[in-house]
This record gives sequence, structure tokens and C-alpha cells, in this order.
Amino acid sequence: MIEHKFNDDAAVIAFVRRHTRLFAEDAVLKVSEIGDGNINFVYRVAEPGGASVIVKQALPYVRIIGEGWPLSLDRNRIEAEALVLEAEHAGDWVPEVYHYEQPLAAIIMQDVGDHQNLRHALIARRHLPQLAEHLGLFMARTLFHTSDMRLDAHQKKDLVKRFINPDLCKITEDLFFIDPFCDHERNAINPPLLPVAQALWQDDLLKAEVAELKYAFLNRAEALLHGDLHSGSIFVTENSTKVIDPEFAYFGPIGFDVGSLIGNLLLNWCGQHRLAGDEAEREAWRDWLLVQLEKLWHHFSQEFGRLMREDTRDPSLQNEHWQQRRLLHIWHDSLGFAGTELIRRTIGLAHVADLDMIEDEQQRAQAEAMALHLGRELIMERTRISSMEGLVDLICQLND
Amino acid sequence: MIEHKFNDDAAVIAFVRRHTRLFAEDAVLKVSEIGDGNINFVYRVAEPGGASVIVKQALPYVRIIGEGWPLSLDRNRIEAEALVLEAEHAGDWVPEVYHYEQPLAAIIMQDVGDHQNLRHALIARRHLPQLAEHLGLFMARTLFHTSDMRLDAHQKKDLVKRFINPDLCKITEDLFFIDPFCDHERNAINPPLLPVAQALWQDDLLKAEVAELKYAFLNRAEALLHGDLHSGSIFVTENSTKVIDPEFAYFGPIGFDVGSLIGNLLLNWCGQHRLAGDEAEREAWRDWLLVQLEKLWHHFSQEFGRLMREDTRDPSLQNEHWQQRRLLHIWHDSLGFAGTELIRRTIGLAHVADLDMIEDEQQRAQAEAMALHLGRELIMERTRISSMEGLVDLICQLND
Repeated sequence: MIEHKFNDDAAVIAFVRRHTRLFAEDAVLKVSEIGDGNINFVYRVAEPGGASVIVKQALPYVRIIGEGWPLSLDRNRIEAEALVLEAEHAGDWVPEVYHYEQPLAAIIMQDVGDHQNLRHALIARRHLPQLAEHLGLFMARTLFHTSDMRLDAHQKKDLVKRFINPDLCKITEDLFFIDPFCDHERNAINPPLLPVAQALWQDDLLKAEVAELKYAFLNRAEALLHGDLHSGSIFVTENSTKVIDPEFAYFGPIGFDVGSLIGNLLLNWCGQHRLAGDEAEREAWRDWLLVQLEKLWHHFSQEFGRLMREDTRDPSLQNEHWQQRRLLHIWHDSLGFAGTELIRRTIGLAHVADLDMIEDEQQRAQAEAMALHLGRELIMERTRISSMEGLVDLICQLND
Repeated sequence: MIEHKFNDDAAVIAFVRRHTRLFAEDAVLKVSEIGDGNINFVYRVAEPGGASVIVKQALPYVRIIGEGWPLSLDRNRIEAEALVLEAEHAGDWVPEVYHYEQPLAAIIMQDVGDHQNLRHALIARRHLPQLAEHLGLFMARTLFHTSDMRLDAHQKKDLVKRFINPDLCKITEDLFFIDPFCDHERNAINPPLLPVAQALWQDDLLKAEVAELKYAFLNRAEALLHGDLHSGSIFVTENSTKVIDPEFAYFGPIGFDVGSLIGNLLLNWCGQHRLAGDEAEREAWRDWLLVQLEKLWHHFSQEFGRLMREDTRDPSLQNEHWQQRRLLHIWHDSLGFAGTELIRRTIGLAHVADLDMIEDEQQRAQAEAMALHLGRELIMERTRISSMEGLVDLICQLND
């Protein structure tokens, strides 16, 4: 029995009416529970044919695992505060927060239900002309404005303290950096793929690089990350992109967000190797994905570079040589974290539909082996891949 | 008017009597204010011929600058908590804390008045056979045990939060990484040295490396640092070493503590080039200093390496390749931070007696130029100096 949980639809509606003025007093409201995530309840409150709003409520444990894996409700505060902070710098690309109520661990926010989940859109090979630009700018602006380049010493440290997020970080620390690299009971491995996974578990040099990435995740409080920037956290239309669910937000290495996104585009690229549909169409789509990858990095790096040049406050960080090198470090980190995302989504606990929807086990294993191989290459070679061209070359070699 | 400040000696004595049982009820106690630091009052309470104790009280501003540079009293809590934490792992080498009282911003602690300040000991060329071992072990144990190698995810983040220390970090951020690399009003420069300083201010490649070190200082929460580990924070006898004053403690890059200490030994090495006394004796002393440098790194790296191998809890950080690489990173960082210490102590606000006691302005400028040159080399070449031998070679070349 969770005391703060809404008992029924009427409680959800009353909560929304108390804290917003979105609905007329005589409007008849309908509540549906739409949460497909793992650790929260998500309600849509809608007037049929009219306005609608989302209520997200956190429970004190991981929903799919149960009370055996407790999770602090503080993540709900962190999500609300992160959304508000992101909106300051990238308001076009996050849902608006209308209200946050700590005792209920509940947020009322804009409904983006007219958007499609990006993972489903990518699986359906839906061309999204503005996606890469929106996400590149979203990351550049949210990350730059919460970094030491922009914030003064006190502001930054106050924010670091507010966003210390041990429960959610622990999930990433385990699921990204431990489980997939050993024979862990939480892993879920397609049987034909087992030998490939076993080879990874023996690979001490790979594990040394993964340790370095984990150490960066644990230690490097560079900027306020979204912290869970996979395709399932993004909703899209032709002209609009909304990034939701920043409950994993904390101060970490900038490349973690960028790498998560790169990794998710590449997971789709691997999956499309064997997903259903016409082969020529799938191959054309995979080429489109690589173009999006280039555009994503282009928009991110151009905007982040511009912000560093124009808006860095700390005089000692205004040095141009250093700023160029910083961008290169972010690139290398991004490739490494993209690699860990590819691997953990293939053999770890939380899979992605981009691979899981390949029905035939053997065909799925081919796409999965590609994801593992690419993941390993990205981690091992990240500091030797100096540009996007180098990355695309590596990817194309893998495809041959 | 500072409300919490002790009004008179009787108030200090009453405070000590209230919170310790060190003195008999009829003991006649004497108070002397012995603070030679810049930001606190330090009282010795002693029974003549008997026991004694130290009371350290923080004021809400920098003592030598005045109310124009306010400083949070929270540093006093941080100092008390850091001393207690250090004592858990390196109790031989820190003064014992008897009491901390938040409303008074005052700590009662062990008196190490039978020890000599290490800076004075080094200037006097006093051989200290156990110094390098004590300090190497002190750093290895305090730093390892507060790192992610040892602490679990929640413990580490709780501590990071407790030791967020913006006011004191800001002092370092400015005095180490900004002032000495530009024509700042806070700098204090020996007139004949001005052209050398001006050349530094034009050196964009150097400033790029300093930016990288500052970024590490700002972002990398690797372990609980002492944060101000210079010769003046260390007290010594032939067989005993006590590290005091951790009010700058915060979670930062491990190499910052190690580098501060290396930098201070090298400042003395530079000063002894031109300090008073017999030249042969000074040169022999400088050789002894280089041996101490080797021993310091030897003891630190052996102990830190042993702790990583034997006591790392996180399975993903138990990788041997990674642990070796981590130690090399700490070495490179240490050299870089040693370089910034050399430079900021020579032309920044806070000088050291190792150089300032050279009476003749021209002679002093020679030793100071050596410190600046060595500092620059350490910063620029740090990732190319792969061992202690490489460092000693570099230093000896400089001396020719």
C-alpha cells in the first residue's frame, strides 16, 4: 500500500483541477493510465475532443521489478526541476511543467500525445526532417548552460547538490557498466548470441575501457545531463520534437547524453539490417540514419562551439585551443558511451524494440551481433576516431 | 561585530572546559592567539607545563582581506568533518578532533605545537627521515577510501553533497587558475620578474593546459581532497607528521593533493638555489629534496596501487589494466597541478617564504624564474613525463 498513490480517477482529476485552469468547471474529464515505462504511473487527463494534460506519479520502487528494488521518490522532484531548467534554454523541446507536488511525488505537465514515440517512428522508418537539428540544439543548449563554462562557481555547485541522484544513477552504473560485461542474472541474451556475449566477458582490455567510461560517469560533473536520452524518451512529429522523462538527470559527463542518442540511432541501424520490410527500403533508411548522425553531431558541435566562444563567462575557459580540445573530448566520450548503450541494450536487462522486433531468433542474433561488434569498436577505438567521417567509415566497414 | 566570536580568553577557556575533560578543575589556563593563517582565529589553551589544546574559530570573511571577501562559516564544519574522516583511514597523521560546535564555528582539537611547521623545517634544511612515507601513505589512504573504488554509489554521493564547498573552492579557482595567468590586481610580482610573468600571460598554449587543469578541478569529484596540501598545512617532528587545516576539503581530482605537495617540495628546491647559507649544503639539500620527491611518489603509488588491487569494491573497477592506467593519470594530473602551484606561489597573491626569504631582489628573481619555468614545463609536458626518472631529468636539466 503506497500512501501517496492516487486512489482512483477522481483523485487524479481533482489534483489536476486544483492546480491548473486548463479545463472548464463543467468539463467531463476522462483518465487513462498510459505508463509504458518501468518505474512510474502516467495518467492522461483529457476532455474528449478538448484539452488534455499528463500527470506523472512516482512510486517508491521499480514498477516492473517491485518492492525488492526501492527507488527514492526524490526522482520526481529531480524530473520536475530538470524540465524547468531545460525549458529555460531549450523550451521548444520539452513539455511544459504546470505543477509539481512533492508530497504526492506527482507532476502535472503538457501532454505530447499528438507526438509519436521516436523509437516507434524509427522502427517504422518515418523520415523526420528536423529531428537531428532539434536534438543537436537541445543537447548543446541544455548542457552548455549548466556547465562551468556558463555558470559561476556558486550556481554550479548549488545545482550539483540539488541534482545528486544516487538511486537513478545506480541503475545506470549497474545496467550500463557492470551487467553486460559479466554473466549477470539480470542479463537477457538471445540464445544464439551467447558465444558472442561470453567472448565480451573475457575481454579484459574492453573491460578496462568500460571502467574508464564508468569512472567518468561516476566522477565528471560537467553539466546537468538528461541522463536517459534514448529514443523512448523522445516524442516527435514532422516539425516538433519533445524530450521527456529526465528523472535520471544528474551532473555527469556531457558525452553521456550525446552518446546515448548516437547509440540509439545505431541500434536502429543494426536492427534495420534484419527488421521486416523491403530490403532496399531498409538499406536506404539505414543510409538516412547515418546522415542524421552526421547532422546531429554537426548541429550539436556547431552550437556548443558557438556558445563556448560567445557565452563562456569564466575568463580562464575562454581559451580557443582549449575549447576545441573540449569538443574533441566530448566526441570521444560520446563514442564510448554510445558503445556501452549498444552493448547493454543487446544483452543487458533493458532491450530495445529496434532489435527485439526481429522475429526470427537467428536473424535477430545477426543484428544483435552487429550491435555488439559496433559497440565494442566504438569503446575501443573512440580516441582514434577523430571525426564523423571516421565513424561513418567504421560503420560502413562493419556492414560489408 | 561578529556575534559568534569569543569575546575574551575566559570565553575560550569556558568553551574548552565545557566540551573536554583535558584539564583539572583547578588548573590555571592560559590562552594565546597563534593564528598565522589568513582566514581564521586559532587559540592555544594551555596549562603552563601541562596539557594544551587548540581552538580554531572561523570568521565570516577572509581575515587578511576583511569583510569585502565574505567566506561561509560552513568551512569550519567541513574542516571538522574532514579531520574526522581522515582520522578513520590515516589517524596517525591528523590532529584528533575533540569537539565541533556549529553555532560558534569552532573546533577543539589536539595541539600539535610540539611539531614544527614543514615550511620552516624545509627552509631550515631539516632532514625528516619519515616525511615522504607519512605523506605518501596519508594521501593514498585518505584519497582511496573516499573514492568510487571504495565507497558504494550512495555513500560516495552523500559525501560529495556534504563536502560541496563553493567559497573555498572559489579561492583556489581564482588564485590558482586565473590570477597568475593574466595581469590581475591581486598578483604580487617581484619587479625584475615582471617580463617573465608577462610572457606567461601571452602564452595561449599554456593557458589552454591551465584551462584543462581548472576544468578537472571544477568537475572531477574523484575523492575527498585535503584541498590545501601545502607545506604550511603540515607539522613535523623527526618521527611524526600531522596534516592540519582541511577547510578547503571537497571532492576533486586526486592529483590536486599530490600535485600541491610535489609543488611545495619543488618551491623549496627553487628557493634553496638562492636562500642564505653555504652553497654546498644547499645543493646537497636540494638533492635530498629530489630523493624525497621520489620516495613520496613511491609510497603514494605503491599504497594506492595496493589498495586498488585489494580493496576495490566495485567489480567493474577491479580491472588491472584500468587500475594501472588510473595511477598514470593521477601522476600526469599531479605534475600539472604541481606546475600551477609553482606559478601561483611565485607571482600570485599568496607567496611562500621559501622564495620570499631570499633577501636580494635579483637573486630572488632568479629562483622565482626557475619556479615559473619549471611550473610551465610541468604543465606543458605532464602527459609526456612517464615516470619519476623523467621528472628528475627535467628538473636537473633546468638546474644546469
